[in-house]
Amino acid sequence: MKSQLKSFIEVDKNSDFPIQNLPYGVFSTLPEKRRRIGVALGEWVIDLAVLEENGFLKIQDGESYFNQPTLNKFIESGKSNWSKIRAELQALLSSETTTLRDNHELRSKVFLKQTEVILHLPVHISGYTDFYSSKEHATNVGSMFRDPKNALLANWSELPVGYNGRASSVVLSGTDIVRPSGQIKLPESERPVFSACRKLDFELETGFIVGRSNALGEPVPIEIAWDHIFGMVLFNDWSARDIQQWEYVPLGPFNAKTFASSISPWIVTLEALEPFKTSSPVQHPKPLAYLQEDHHNNSYDIHLSVEIQAEGQPQTDIICQTNFRHMYWSMAQQLTHHTISGCNLQVGDLMGSGTISGPTPDSYGSLLELTWNTTKPLTLSNGQQRGFLEDGDTLTIKGYCEKEGLRIGFGEVSGKILPAIQFEFSE
Amino acid sequence: MKSQLKSFIEVDKNSDFPIQNLPYGVFSTLPEKRRRIGVALGEWVIDLAVLEENGFLKIQDGESYFNQPTLNKFIESGKSNWSKIRAELQALLSSETTTLRDNHELRSKVFLKQTEVILHLPVHISGYTDFYSSKEHATNVGSMFRDPKNALLANWSELPVGYNGRASSVVLSGTDIVRPSGQIKLPESERPVFSACRKLDFELETGFIVGRSNALGEPVPIEIAWDHIFGMVLFNDWSARDIQQWEYVPLGPFNAKTFASSISPWIVTLEALEPFKTSSPVQHPKPLAYLQEDHHNNSYDIHLSVEIQAEGQPQTDIICQTNFRHMYWSMAQQLTHHTISGCNLQVGDLMGSGTISGPTPDSYGSLLELTWNTTKPLTLSNGQQRGFLEDGDTLTIKGYCEKEGLRIGFGEVSGKILPAIQFEFSE
Repeated sequence: MKSQLKSFIEVDKNSDFPIQNLPYGVFSTLPEKRRRIGVALGEWVIDLAVLEENGFLKIQDGESYFNQPTLNKFIESGKSNWSKIRAELQALLSSETTTLRDNHELRSKVFLKQTEVILHLPVHISGYTDFYSSKEHATNVGSMFRDPKNALLANWSELPVGYNGRASSVVLSGTDIVRPSGQIKLPESERPVFSACRKLDFELETGFIVGRSNALGEPVPIEIAWDHIFGMVLFNDWSARDIQQWEYVPLGPFNAKTFASSISPWIVTLEALEPFKTSSPVQHPKPLAYLQEDHHNNSYDIHLSVEIQAEGQPQTDIICQTNFRHMYWSMAQQLTHHTISGCNLQVGDLMGSGTISGPTPDSYGSLLELTWNTTKPLTLSNGQQRGFLEDGDTLTIKGYCEKEGLRIGFGEVSGKILPAIQFEFSE
Repeated sequence: MKSQLKSFIEVDKNSDFPIQNLPYGVFSTLPEKRRRIGVALGEWVIDLAVLEENGFLKIQDGESYFNQPTLNKFIESGKSNWSKIRAELQALLSSETTTLRDNHELRSKVFLKQTEVILHLPVHISGYTDFYSSKEHATNVGSMFRDPKNALLANWSELPVGYNGRASSVVLSGTDIVRPSGQIKLPESERPVFSACRKLDFELETGFIVGRSNALGEPVPIEIAWDHIFGMVLFNDWSARDIQQWEYVPLGPFNAKTFASSISPWIVTLEALEPFKTSSPVQHPKPLAYLQEDHHNNSYDIHLSVEIQAEGQPQTDIICQTNFRHMYWSMAQQLTHHTISGCNLQVGDLMGSGTISGPTPDSYGSLLELTWNTTKPLTLSNGQQRGFLEDGDTLTIKGYCEKEGLRIGFGEVSGKILPAIQFEFSE
C-alpha cells in the first residue's frame, strides 16, 4: 500500500503534506533571494535545486529544471518526467533509503523550515481562464438575479461556460487585497456613482495548471485531456459584486475581477490525488460527443472549507464546507471545450473551476449565496454580522482529501482585505 | 517643418513608411533566424541591432535593446528613450547627415528589403483586452439582437465596456485562419449542434500597445494615461458569430474569439501620429470624473479600410471605409478604466479598440453589420455574394493618416480563411 510509505522525516498525521503528496512550489530565502523549486513535506520544504546540484533528479544532462524561478520548465519536460521525479523523491525520502537519510551534510542543505522561506507564485501564468461549472452556484446566482424557475441559462447544461480572466493580477496566498473602487449603479439614482466596492466577495474555487501545450488550431480530444493537466491549487476569485452587476453586460465580468485573484502556493499533482478519484454528477442532457467522458472516475473527493477572521479578533469562523465532487463539468471537459475552436493553451495556464457550491446552504462557496445577497446576513461568533467582506477581514480557503489514514492536503489560500484607495477627485 | 525632413533613402510618396513614421517591428532573415528589432523605411527594414553594435542608439552601457526577440525591453526603457531613439534615427537617416549615408559598408548591413525578411510578433503580449468603444457598432449590434429603440445598454455610455481576451492566440498578419468549430444553436432545434462556424466574421479594429506598467492596486490617472501608451497597430478580432451568440451569456465571448486575433507587424508610435491628433465625439452624459478628458485632442484621424479577395480571384473589393476618429471612448479612457479597480497592466499588453464602425452603412467594421446579419448580402465585383466569410477568402485591413503631403501608414493586417478541421466524432 502506498499509504504505508513513510519518510525518515517525521510528518504529523494531520499534515497536508505527507510523503504521498509532495506538492511543488517556488521559494527563496533571505538574503540570497534566488527563487528555486521545492516540494513540501510536513513542516519542511525540500530544496530540489540542491538535490539536483548533487546529482539527483536528473532529467537531461547539463540542464537545470529546479534551479528555476518558476515550475514551467519542469512542467514542460513532460508527464513521464513528472512521474519519474515523484518516484525518485519518494524513494529518496523514504525511511528505508539511506542515501539522503544518512548524509547529514546534504540533509542540512536540502531541508528548510517552511516558516523560514518566502513562497512565490509557483508558475508563470500566461493565460488565466475561469469557468462556471458548479450547477448549484449557477442555479443560486440565476435564482437571485434572474428567475428561480429558469435559473440556469440554456447553454449552461450544454457546455462548461467560461471566460478569459486577467493573468497579471493572480497573486499568491498571503497577498493583501485592496478593496477595489469603480462604477456602481445604485437603484435609487439614474446614473452610476464612483465608489469603493460595497459588495466585496470571495469565490471558493480550485484551479488546475495546464501541463502540456497544444498548438493553435489543434484542439485537445477529451480522451487525452487529463494528460494535459499537471496539478491543482486552491483559488479565490475575489469579486466585486456591485461593480460586476453594472459592468458585465454584454461582454462579461471585467473590473469586478481583475483587481486580484489568489492561489495557494503548493501545486498538488494529479498523481498525488489519484487515490481520491471519484464520480461527478450524471449529466443530463448527455453532452455532445466532443465532451463525453465516463463520469464514474472524472472527479476528486476534496473537502473544502472557508474561514473568516475579523480584524483584531481571535475567533475564526468556518462559514462554508463543501466538496469538489459536486462540480458538474470535469476539468477534462473544461480543457477540451477551451481548445475545441482551436485556442492554444500553454504550460502554466491557470484554469479556475468556478465557485464550488454544494447542495445545502452551508456549502455555498460565496457570501453572495451564503447571505443570499445580504438578505440573510451571517452572524460571526464574535457577534459581528457579515453581508459581504469588511476591511480587515482575513478570508482563508482550505482543502484536503482523506481516506484510510491518508491525507493529501492543499494547504490554504488566504488574503486580508485592506481599505480602498482614497481618490483625489470626487463626484 | 517635420514633413520636410527627407531621408537619403528614396521613399515613394505613397509609402506608409516615410522617415516621419519609423514604426517598430521584429524580423529575422534566413538562414540565421535570429530575431531582432527593425524599423520600416519605404521598402526597407533598418536593422537596429546592427546600428547598436556599431555604437549608435545607445540607451545604457553594456545593454542591448535591439538585438532582442521582442520590443518589450526597449519599450520598458521608458518614454524618454522612445523619443531619443526616434530623434537619433531620424537624424541618422536624414539626407543631410553623412554618417550612415556615406558609409557604404555599414549601409549594406543595415538596410534589408522588406520582401526579404520574415516578420514576427513585435511584442510579447502578456495580456490582451478588447474594448467595445464605437457607438455606431454597439448601436448596430444592439439593434439587431436586442431592441432598435434601446440599442445601447445603460452602462455603455458611462464606461468603456471591455473584456479580457486570450493573448496566446494573437497572431501576426499573414497567418492563415482555420475556420473554428464549436457549439451552435440553430433556431429549429432544441439542442445545439457541433459544427464548423457558419458565420465567420472579421472585426476592423486598431489596438494600442501598453508602454508602461502600473503596479497592482495603483490605478493610472487619466492625466498621465497617454504616457502609458507606446503605439498603435491594426487589429482584426476574428469572430465566430454563431458560436458567440450561444455561448456569450452571462460571462461574455470565449471560443467565438479565442481561435485567433491578428495584428499588423509594425507598431506606429504615438509620436509619429502626433500631427494627426483630432477630436473625438462629444460625450453625453459627461463621464464620471475619473474618465474626464478634453475631447478636442484625444483621437487620431486614421483612415481605415477593409478589402476582401476570394480564392483564386484577381479582384479585390473594398467593403468598408471608416475612420478611427469616430471612436467614442479614447485610448486614455480605456486604459484608465482598465486600471481603476487596481488591475496591473504590463508593458506589451494589447488593447483592442473594439470594432470601428462609422455612421454610414459603407463604414461598418464587420460583415455582421455590413450585411445586417446576412439579410443584405454583399455582391463582390466577381459576382459572388457574401453574408459572412467563405473558405479561401483573404481579408485585409489597411490604415493610414494623411495631411499636407505627409502620410503615416500602418501597412496592413491580413489573413486567409482555411477550411475547418474534420473531426472524427459526429453527432
